[in-house]
Amino acid sequence: MNGLIREREALLGLHGRLMQRFGDIDGNDFVIDPWQRTAVDGGFGGDGRTAILEDSVVIERGAVLFSHIAGTALPPAATLHRPHLAGRPYEVVGVSVVLHPRNPFAPTAHMNVRCFAVNAEDQLYRWVGGGMDLTPCYLFDDDAVAFHRAARAAAPAEYPTWKQQCDQYFWLKHRQEARGVGGIFFDDYVGVDALDTALAVGRGFGDAVGNIVMAHKDDPYEASHRDWQLIRRGRYAEFNLVWDRGTTFGLQSNGRIESILASMPPQASWRYAHEPNAGSHEARTLAVLKTPRAWL
Amino acid sequence: MNGLIREREALLGLHGRLMQRFGDIDGNDFVIDPWQRTAVDGGFGGDGRTAILEDSVVIERGAVLFSHIAGTALPPAATLHRPHLAGRPYEVVGVSVVLHPRNPFAPTAHMNVRCFAVNAEDQLYRWVGGGMDLTPCYLFDDDAVAFHRAARAAAPAEYPTWKQQCDQYFWLKHRQEARGVGGIFFDDYVGVDALDTALAVGRGFGDAVGNIVMAHKDDPYEASHRDWQLIRRGRYAEFNLVWDRGTTFGLQSNGRIESILASMPPQASWRYAHEPNAGSHEARTLAVLKTPRAWL
Repeated sequence: MNGLIREREALLGLHGRLMQRFGDIDGNDFVIDPWQRTAVDGGFGGDGRTAILEDSVVIERGAVLFSHIAGTALPPAATLHRPHLAGRPYEVVGVSVVLHPRNPFAPTAHMNVRCFAVNAEDQLYRWVGGGMDLTPCYLFDDDAVAFHRAARAAAPAEYPTWKQQCDQYFWLKHRQEARGVGGIFFDDYVGVDALDTALAVGRGFGDAVGNIVMAHKDDPYEASHRDWQLIRRGRYAEFNLVWDRGTTFGLQSNGRIESILASMPPQASWRYAHEPNAGSHEARTLAVLKTPRAWL
Repeated sequence: MNGLIREREALLGLHGRLMQRFGDIDGNDFVIDPWQRTAVDGGFGGDGRTAILEDSVVIERGAVLFSHIAGTALPPAATLHRPHLAGRPYEVVGVSVVLHPRNPFAPTAHMNVRCFAVNAEDQLYRWVGGGMDLTPCYLFDDDAVAFHRAARAAAPAEYPTWKQQCDQYFWLKHRQEARGVGGIFFDDYVGVDALDTALAVGRGFGDAVGNIVMAHKDDPYEASHRDWQLIRRGRYAEFNLVWDRGTTFGLQSNGRIESILASMPPQASWRYAHEPNAGSHEARTLAVLKTPRAWL
């Protein structure tokens, strides 16, 4: 655990910055649950800081997570593009954020950046993965555009490819609809500026989502808007538990359950064959989710 | 589609009986959504009757499903014990029930029976699978005992084995806890009385669960009981989406989504590292779920 000293310091800084930013918006401090875990039986060990807002004012449920772990055998799921590194000793440090705002007009937002170092026989491999994506229950085009602008600003050259990868990854195949309006998603970035790019993604996310949540946190809403929000959060739960590689891998491999499931919505609901009324804001949102769009 | 005429008629009768029973308890009729599906591209076709109670009085969400389908290639997941039949033409007719009562002291209940017929080169194979299991948020020992008595009465000789299989199947590995207090679960029953056993399971479930829900539907409760119910329903959602073979297979293989997800709770919630107070009814329930018990 000493290949990623610079990355650890930088990502701890990002963790603090995002916690501060979203805590300021909510008006309440995140509760920090620091943890340590000793590697046993070929598993992984490390430490982390899980920061949570639960049943809060603006952010009904929010998690800003830092973790730094090392293990003796890289899981195959962690390295789709470098299968020859599966099973090698590895180290990974990352920050992830999920915010479920209370107001139905404020979108759910997610960001993750993680820096890998893997020791193979011949050399030390390093790469960065991550992304940011936005999941509105009620689509506002301006928000989607602002979010994508922030994503492109963080990685201008890679944006077109990473935007497409995001649309592909956050696809609920069983519903034939996207989780949200996308953003960027990347698995395996090895540029010399990899850490700077990860930090730019994290900061860009914080600024863009901060502005969007501030803009909607006091929008007036009714019970029917809340109902639709809970149905859409049911979809979010479906994506995380059925399709998300990180979540399903974590659940099936003795990960830290409370951190893995910190991404789940505070409340969700399911209805039989629910369809929004034709022409409604709900129907327009759903139509866009069924056909991912070029926002820029 | 003509190998299971007797089974179809018997299970349509069971479907009607259960719908009537639970509709009487609720005071409202189930809404029936009949469907037909034509086989395309090596998929499956058939028909079904999806009966739903949504946001209702006693049963907050309930589904009583009948389906009868045929396909050209039996999915491997459908026949763990007969791998040589995977890929053969098959027919299956079944009934399943999931009830999520509104009162937190009334348990969630699930039952499924299905009759298979598979054409292999040498002969026609038939078997029956299914089970019944109970998921209380608040454990009442008497209810668990009554439910297990009903399960044993439906299949006295097989009960000891099927009870164990149920505890094994409905295990949330990532939580190290059972979904509920079990019941029976069987994959591959070929007795000469297979259809009668399936019907006995269905009827026994209807009677036992009817009595249990009637006993608790008017229990007084407070907001804190509802909170715990929603957290436990989150676990139910986790089981269905992460571990249930029928659900995950259906979602990943172009099944009929609305029928597959009719088992989901009407509402569910997630909290970070939630633990019930020591000595509470909630804590006692959770302790029993962590160590499945012999109820009879």
